[in-house]
Amino acid sequence: MDEQWIPARAGDTLSSVDTPALILDLDRFEANLTRLMNAIHGRSVRVRPHAKSHKCVEIARRQIAAGAIGICCQKTSEAAPFLAGGIADVLITNEVVGQRKTARLAELAASYPAAKVGVCVDNAIAVAELARACERADSALDVYIELDVGHNRAGVTATEEVVALAHAIGMHRKLSLRGLQAYFGNAQHRRSTSERRDAIATATSLARRAKAALVEAGLPCDVVTGAGTGTFMLEATSGVYNEIQPGSYAMMDVDYAKNETEPSWPAFEQSMFILTTVMSRRKDAHSDRATLDAGLKSFSTDSGPASPAFAGWQVRAVSDEHTVLERHGAGNELALGDKPLLIPGHIDPTVNLHDWIVAVRNDRVEAVWRIDARGAIF
Amino acid sequence: MDEQWIPARAGDTLSSVDTPALILDLDRFEANLTRLMNAIHGRSVRVRPHAKSHKCVEIARRQIAAGAIGICCQKTSEAAPFLAGGIADVLITNEVVGQRKTARLAELAASYPAAKVGVCVDNAIAVAELARACERADSALDVYIELDVGHNRAGVTATEEVVALAHAIGMHRKLSLRGLQAYFGNAQHRRSTSERRDAIATATSLARRAKAALVEAGLPCDVVTGAGTGTFMLEATSGVYNEIQPGSYAMMDVDYAKNETEPSWPAFEQSMFILTTVMSRRKDAHSDRATLDAGLKSFSTDSGPASPAFAGWQVRAVSDEHTVLERHGAGNELALGDKPLLIPGHIDPTVNLHDWIVAVRNDRVEAVWRIDARGAIF
Repeated sequence: MDEQWIPARAGDTLSSVDTPALILDLDRFEANLTRLMNAIHGRSVRVRPHAKSHKCVEIARRQIAAGAIGICCQKTSEAAPFLAGGIADVLITNEVVGQRKTARLAELAASYPAAKVGVCVDNAIAVAELARACERADSALDVYIELDVGHNRAGVTATEEVVALAHAIGMHRKLSLRGLQAYFGNAQHRRSTSERRDAIATATSLARRAKAALVEAGLPCDVVTGAGTGTFMLEATSGVYNEIQPGSYAMMDVDYAKNETEPSWPAFEQSMFILTTVMSRRKDAHSDRATLDAGLKSFSTDSGPASPAFAGWQVRAVSDEHTVLERHGAGNELALGDKPLLIPGHIDPTVNLHDWIVAVRNDRVEAVWRIDARGAIF
Repeated sequence: MDEQWIPARAGDTLSSVDTPALILDLDRFEANLTRLMNAIHGRSVRVRPHAKSHKCVEIARRQIAAGAIGICCQKTSEAAPFLAGGIADVLITNEVVGQRKTARLAELAASYPAAKVGVCVDNAIAVAELARACERADSALDVYIELDVGHNRAGVTATEEVVALAHAIGMHRKLSLRGLQAYFGNAQHRRSTSERRDAIATATSLARRAKAALVEAGLPCDVVTGAGTGTFMLEATSGVYNEIQPGSYAMMDVDYAKNETEPSWPAFEQSMFILTTVMSRRKDAHSDRATLDAGLKSFSTDSGPASPAFAGWQVRAVSDEHTVLERHGAGNELALGDKPLLIPGHIDPTVNLHDWIVAVRNDRVEAVWRIDARGAIF
């Protein structure tokens, strides 16, 4: 979208921000960054936050300033703005397949020779493609073998496959095997900590076995990386994982707020909201409804809709550009033109719908950050 | 997203297009435009397609070349690229509320004095705001009173409210009352034609009554506008509606394909697809799965996920950047690097996730069109 539609300028009051807009409460956001680093302080575990959650170079810079060693991305086009923005260590936690895509990745790595660029593989054909692309572009890639530790989405399962892939990677001088990607995605959202403990215990044992097989074969496995906001305390204390990849922790969402947690785990606060406007209001014998100017094009509904950050209202319907709230018990009044805040249901695909993050402290806009990798699906 | 990530160039073969990409089958698309115009041929009903579905100036131009009189939008920022692209008749089928938003709309209308720009109202406060903004910007707006005909999202219900609002609009020389917006959104997706017939019969009777009240009070009501892809044949033959607003008809989706239809209604074909790549493949005793490189950031799931445009596979899981297909009966084989097509579950929020439409004829890229109003939420 055109720059002229930027929703706010530094110095604006929160109530003057155009809507719908993503609002980042800076005090809470900064506290979340600190909470994560404190939680793993003293352990030999590195933090590599997942930038697919925020897609914003300025947030990545702040995560690194807080102690992260680099970031994760999911796509080559997503990695590009972070490398351009000076983030010097980027791991694509995903397979990159096909001649066009491997060529783009190898060329991107060639453009930033001082940066570390990593990628995952689960197939020997893809290894050969990556190697050829790197030869052509004269660039080097760090390579991680993706292990399917229960997510059942990508990755190899058998230990022999891991070793065979490692040998295949070892044949190419432009590819350096760094270790294992062992992410158990859907374990993040299992509600009880015991379910998550069980899932990560399985993942850890699979990762331990794969690592042992690599070491025994004299192959490198310096890094075992994975974990997300829902489980990273388990991976961080597993004795096997030495790198964690949480993303949502910095912003949070309704879905993560539903997770049971443990007293010794950090309690992240909701720091990101969607500012909306009441664009239609009806209050009569038949209805007590406030219709907001944000819908499916301002938040994702895959994990449920965004929900009011205030009492007395619940979501009755969501359409492309509208959310209809209905009165539900005592709470705030809403009048035409009011600007209520919603909490995103699922943060990653919600951020991806926006072009700007409005960073706010004490109801005053401190900065507006571009969501640099918005729509970076290639 | 940066121009360098454009997924295709004119002349490319379909199989060389980068993924995930929105593919428009031009033969089917053009046939859909013709089907709509043929279906209402000879009736005194104008076609004003909803551009919130495609957000693409080039598609709007082709709809107008096929006989449409203009387009609908939902937001001021969405209307802007269409006006800039030469579309001279744009109706915002939505309320615009708040000083900042009304000022932007009035300024936009001032920038295109030769164009007709319309907006909806359901509240006297908003009418006064719009009038002040137009006075300041020295611009004029067409105004439509939104009638709640069953959608229960915005709009007034009582005939007296319609007449009172019409009087309020009439007090302002920069605002011209044109008629009624009477859209029954959720009726579009009721599965049986009898349910849709009942819904539109109710809507028509409410619109007829409101129009009669305006005429009786000596107030203007030249246009009764509304309808979508699921019901427009009912509004077009109602004797009350004289303008229809279908959007999805040009592209279609899984959700609309589930609607029962009638032999005399046009049979629109699926013309838009999501091209993907098989980025991981597993086939062993435990699993027969193909993982695609498109997920929640390439299609919306509010009406169910995108689904394979081919036999033998079904969607097992969708995450941010992945869709996992599982073998389900006989059908195509899928190998690593293959590029299968998916059919969007819900077309409007899916298009909004992309920056380009790759227009294809006979497996050859004919053009790549920018989705000009992608992310235009303000």
